[in-house]
Amino acid sequence: MGATMFGLLKERRAPGATLKQIPVPKCGPDEVLVRVKASSICGTDMHIYKWDEWAERTVPTPNVFGHEFAGVVEQVGERVTNAKVGDRVSGEGHIVCGVCEACRTGNAHVCPNTKSFGITVPGCFAEYAIVKASNLIHISPDLPFELACLHDPLGNAVHTVLSGEIVGKSVAVIGAGPIGLMAVAVAKACGAGMIVAVDVNPYRLEMAARMGADATVNSKETPIVDAIRELTGGEGIEVVLEMSGNPTAIREGFEAAANAGRVSLLGIPAQEVSLDLARHIIFKGLRVVGITGRRMYETWYQMKALLDQKRIDLSPLVTHKFTLDRYEEAFELMATGRCGKIVFVH
Amino acid sequence: MGATMFGLLKERRAPGATLKQIPVPKCGPDEVLVRVKASSICGTDMHIYKWDEWAERTVPTPNVFGHEFAGVVEQVGERVTNAKVGDRVSGEGHIVCGVCEACRTGNAHVCPNTKSFGITVPGCFAEYAIVKASNLIHISPDLPFELACLHDPLGNAVHTVLSGEIVGKSVAVIGAGPIGLMAVAVAKACGAGMIVAVDVNPYRLEMAARMGADATVNSKETPIVDAIRELTGGEGIEVVLEMSGNPTAIREGFEAAANAGRVSLLGIPAQEVSLDLARHIIFKGLRVVGITGRRMYETWYQMKALLDQKRIDLSPLVTHKFTLDRYEEAFELMATGRCGKIVFVH
Amino acid sequence: MGATMFGLLKERRAPGATLKQIPVPKCGPDEVLVRVKASSICGTDMHIYKWDEWAERTVPTPNVFGHEFAGVVEQVGERVTNAKVGDRVSGEGHIVCGVCEACRTGNAHVCPNTKSFGITVPGCFAEYAIVKASNLIHISPDLPFELACLHDPLGNAVHTVLSGEIVGKSVAVIGAGPIGLMAVAVAKACGAGMIVAVDVNPYRLEMAARMGADATVNSKETPIVDAIRELTGGEGIEVVLEMSGNPTAIREGFEAAANAGRVSLLGIPAQEVSLDLARHIIFKGLRVVGITGRRMYETWYQMKALLDQKRIDLSPLVTHKFTLDRYEEAFELMATGRCGKIVFVH
Amino acid sequence: MGATMFGLLKERRAPGATLKQIPVPKCGPDEVLVRVKASSICGTDMHIYKWDEWAERTVPTPNVFGHEFAGVVEQVGERVTNAKVGDRVSGEGHIVCGVCEACRTGNAHVCPNTKSFGITVPGCFAEYAIVKASNLIHISPDLPFELACLHDPLGNAVHTVLSGEIVGKSVAVIGAGPIGLMAVAVAKACGAGMIVAVDVNPYRLEMAARMGADATVNSKETPIVDAIRELTGGEGIEVVLEMSGNPTAIREGFEAAANAGRVSLLGIPAQEVSLDLARHIIFKGLRVVGITGRRMYETWYQMKALLDQKRIDLSPLVTHKFTLDRYEEAFELMATGRCGKIVFVH
Repeated sequence: MGATMFGLLKERRAPGATLKQIPVPKCGPDEVLVRVKASSICGTDMHIYKWDEWAERTVPTPNVFGHEFAGVVEQVGERVTNAKVGDRVSGEGHIVCGVCEACRTGNAHVCPNTKSFGITVPGCFAEYAIVKASNLIHISPDLPFELACLHDPLGNAVHTVLSGEIVGKSVAVIGAGPIGLMAVAVAKACGAGMIVAVDVNPYRLEMAARMGADATVNSKETPIVDAIRELTGGEGIEVVLEMSGNPTAIREGFEAAANAGRVSLLGIPAQEVSLDLARHIIFKGLRVVGITGRRMYETWYQMKALLDQKRIDLSPLVTHKFTLDRYEEAFELMATGRCGKIVFVH
Repeated sequence: MGATMFGLLKERRAPGATLKQIPVPKCGPDEVLVRVKASSICGTDMHIYKWDEWAERTVPTPNVFGHEFAGVVEQVGERVTNAKVGDRVSGEGHIVCGVCEACRTGNAHVCPNTKSFGITVPGCFAEYAIVKASNLIHISPDLPFELACLHDPLGNAVHTVLSGEIVGKSVAVIGAGPIGLMAVAVAKACGAGMIVAVDVNPYRLEMAARMGADATVNSKETPIVDAIRELTGGEGIEVVLEMSGNPTAIREGFEAAANAGRVSLLGIPAQEVSLDLARHIIFKGLRVVGITGRRMYETWYQMKALLDQKRIDLSPLVTHKFTLDRYEEAFELMATGRCGKIVFVH
Repeated sequence: MGATMFGLLKERRAPGATLKQIPVPKCGPDEVLVRVKASSICGTDMHIYKWDEWAERTVPTPNVFGHEFAGVVEQVGERVTNAKVGDRVSGEGHIVCGVCEACRTGNAHVCPNTKSFGITVPGCFAEYAIVKASNLIHISPDLPFELACLHDPLGNAVHTVLSGEIVGKSVAVIGAGPIGLMAVAVAKACGAGMIVAVDVNPYRLEMAARMGADATVNSKETPIVDAIRELTGGEGIEVVLEMSGNPTAIREGFEAAANAGRVSLLGIPAQEVSLDLARHIIFKGLRVVGITGRRMYETWYQMKALLDQKRIDLSPLVTHKFTLDRYEEAFELMATGRCGKIVFVH
Repeated sequence: MGATMFGLLKERRAPGATLKQIPVPKCGPDEVLVRVKASSICGTDMHIYKWDEWAERTVPTPNVFGHEFAGVVEQVGERVTNAKVGDRVSGEGHIVCGVCEACRTGNAHVCPNTKSFGITVPGCFAEYAIVKASNLIHISPDLPFELACLHDPLGNAVHTVLSGEIVGKSVAVIGAGPIGLMAVAVAKACGAGMIVAVDVNPYRLEMAARMGADATVNSKETPIVDAIRELTGGEGIEVVLEMSGNPTAIREGFEAAANAGRVSLLGIPAQEVSLDLARHIIFKGLRVVGITGRRMYETWYQMKALLDQKRIDLSPLVTHKFTLDRYEEAFELMATGRCGKIVFVH
């Protein structure tokens, strides 16, 4: 291993990024150094790339960004017991304190002391990355790195789908971005009833059908509530997986939900949303679940089994691959929405 | 039994009520006739009495109102197998269809075909009332009728408290009306951690302390969020039981909730409420539960055990008793808020 | 409809059965008369046919037996609101009281007052059958009757699989009879991890592979514990679905279970079983679930969705079809174990 | 702190123990040194003291035994972030690996790599003890050390009571040793219905009544099944908390359980137990839960809240206190069974 490596940096507090030679990071006693073999672009990376208000508030500079990865362990810290050089791994990006009540009671994903790999500390758009050993998950030998780097968003999808009962329930996935598309596949693999994908982008709706949606709704053409009413014979949909963050879609999702149903919220609205709590939550006896990250590490073991046993196939999702030096092209493509998941092959 | 009885009727579609002689109702094959021994006034009855927009939209006239009751079975329909003359009973007010998916899967409390005893069909502010046999619950011989008539609102409290984990959890009851006061007692009886009661009415806050609240907050004097922050050492409250229906209190309840916490919504806001879904639900990994009625009939068996084993004592709640002819006095007192539960002794 | 019909009767309290002309039964006010289009043979029917000790103790004579069916509603009782003539239906065989605590709290499947369709009251091996209206489930127009009659055993499988967490869990189905085979398909459809089918019958193990088992174990050749240890890298299996009723298999299932695992018991052992509670349940922190029937009616709605959305395909299971007059041949075949599900086409 | 301290050692692989001067242990980077202020005797300590077969198989010598403790942090390892000198603490005795699947998915209490404080590594019957920092729990300033040292067995009781639904359920605690007595108090504090304590020791049954049992049964005089049948009007008991480890009591507990009930097994039988799985688990739709240790660390936060809010009072349980030098007297007393919890005051 050389002393330097290429890394995609956020250097200036302004739109864009810089690919440059930087020192290979050193791994601490509880960490491993991973040679990154594949990484993928998340919507969060786009916020960082474009440098919006959230990024300005959140991201230190300079910082290597990117948090979705897979690779091979190159070096292990002296106290590490769960990994060795040569292991094929992916990993969780929430770096948590481990000693607060949330961490000690199964809710580490909402640890108030979380640091974020690739957001507040250096990440994986580079040849090497430092990962806390506790955050690693081993991947199967026959899972290609370009699919294995999708564990992080797949984890969001699995966590959202499984945040309540799913077997036999009718499901609407609102927002067919990459996580929504994964949610379609996961819901199907977990025994959901009718799965309806909703988006305004025909390209994404076609992908949703390919991932297993039983019906697709273009909400630009048909209001969500009307479409759901027709598809469910007027009963409403039992599970809403909200992955758009769009205030209108959120409101309609609540309205479309059936009595005793569930609405899991993953998409992040940029402003407040006004809700008819009486009619759409209280009288319906609805359950609403806020989703952050992935359960640490139940979700990871669920993913592992679903992938290892081939209950889900993520390959249709990876529509484009680039080398890291073509990052500008990659981010521009992503902005068009005419893509599934974009992967950097390192 | 005479052929007529006194009943408190909503006759005119305008404020007020009428006490008059009416025929004793006939009981159908699946019903029982109950001689009402005690009944109590719910906030819903006040809406009917004052005749607000909701009442105008919902309540047929003429109709005997009142739905919280206890009494003795006087006559049983020919197909009834679970009750006999002389049984001491109270009962559920949701009259459900029994054949829809909600009814058949443990969610009868949100059956879309529900008729409401004392609201859309005749109720219990009368000498006799017709109750569907399936809706009866038997009460213990040593439970006085004036407490037994409180099963319906107690059921709301039990359902709300138990709509998620409670043992060891810090709890804020927002809105210390009768159901809120019961929720304080139920939460305490079920092993909650610190219980904080919140209201703007000092009389009610004193009652909350008497019912077992570990702390009380007058939200007119201290904002809910500040008070909770101080009481919990900055961590937020683990369970919010929202029983006020007040939009500001609802918003503050969400803000005061801890990561991985729960907000159960029982109080019905009259308008839409704007929420910061990102910060107050999604990033917190919060669970929100809409509460309607009582679980049929899990909640009733829980109530029975809590009352029979004296895990809760409702007697401090009954601050006033009237005979039915003094109904005007009773409703006026209720409007002042300087009362707990008002019971009609028949 | 004629006044008489053919029915397969248990007439004598001895092995065998009698096909004869009997009156078409009359339907009561809460019942429907179903024209049976297909029925299937359960292990229980074999006990009745062979007339073992359990049958002697349990079954009145004369009685039409058979309880797995699908058909068309021919006549409806005067109080029935959830079915009409011409509806395609199957139904639950537990006829429960509806008023006991079990029935009122979501546990009707263990109602102590249960009557059993086709066992203690007349069943479906006949041209017509009386079914309690509350027990009906409507089936999709494109589900053939010969598959729809399998709802009852499928319900056992679904209830067993879903009596605890299943997504991503490794599963051993011990006993690959028809319900075990269905459990393989259901576990796969619900996102289980590795699914291992165990039996002593090679014919059944081949069927298990066809239904989706990832591995099969012939426990005559390899002890269950050894096989599971090897398949799971020594960790044990997370979920054991015990469907054999064989005491040795039961003991080995407990031993093969992983820490924090689950053992769901459906197979009925004929005698007591000695268990090492300390090592195999307590120290492992195991959960054990006794399975009876199907959840009424959550399981039915789950089945409906799994079948309607084609998440499971039962057709490979139906290996043989007979007309009712060939019942002797059918029972003889069943005794050989070289069959999947045997269906009577009426 | 001096360089040596008094410690109660298991030195010889034979009955008895030795109190002697030994070096104060050194604390590693992730550990703290605790000055022990109070410790208590567990049944396990008695097995070690008497040196039975289990002890011979399990316990290395020489080893300081004892695992129930409370004290003050005297020194902290260099990597410790969750404790500081002077903190009042108790702690979990299961020292787990933290990296296996059980540890990473909320089941650390059954980590297959567990080391046991005071059993396989040095414990707390000494002036000082080394505790892994992750295992500490802070205790409230107003909780006396002599009660705080009871967290470990209290945790067993809380874990057992809360291993299924408890509110409103009738409960039988079989075996009124210290953990059983605590379970009575915890069940009552968590809203259980009727609580029945069962034992053969009148002294313990009196204590059970004092801890809140609604009924007590001396199973030497009345068979458990008969007593429960009478107390429950023939319905059986909804929750059995088995804390005796006695095979006959275990069998009767299963028989006494109601349909859809729960049996949680904590008491460890010395031999296999023969069970009628068909009648007592399967047909009843029973749930059985094996209990080991405490949930790490949900149970600890539940205990903290129950103690801090005074929902339970453990003081009646501590019937005897000794200084460590009177250990022989203490163990002899314990053997008589005429005591509650015996505490060493250091």
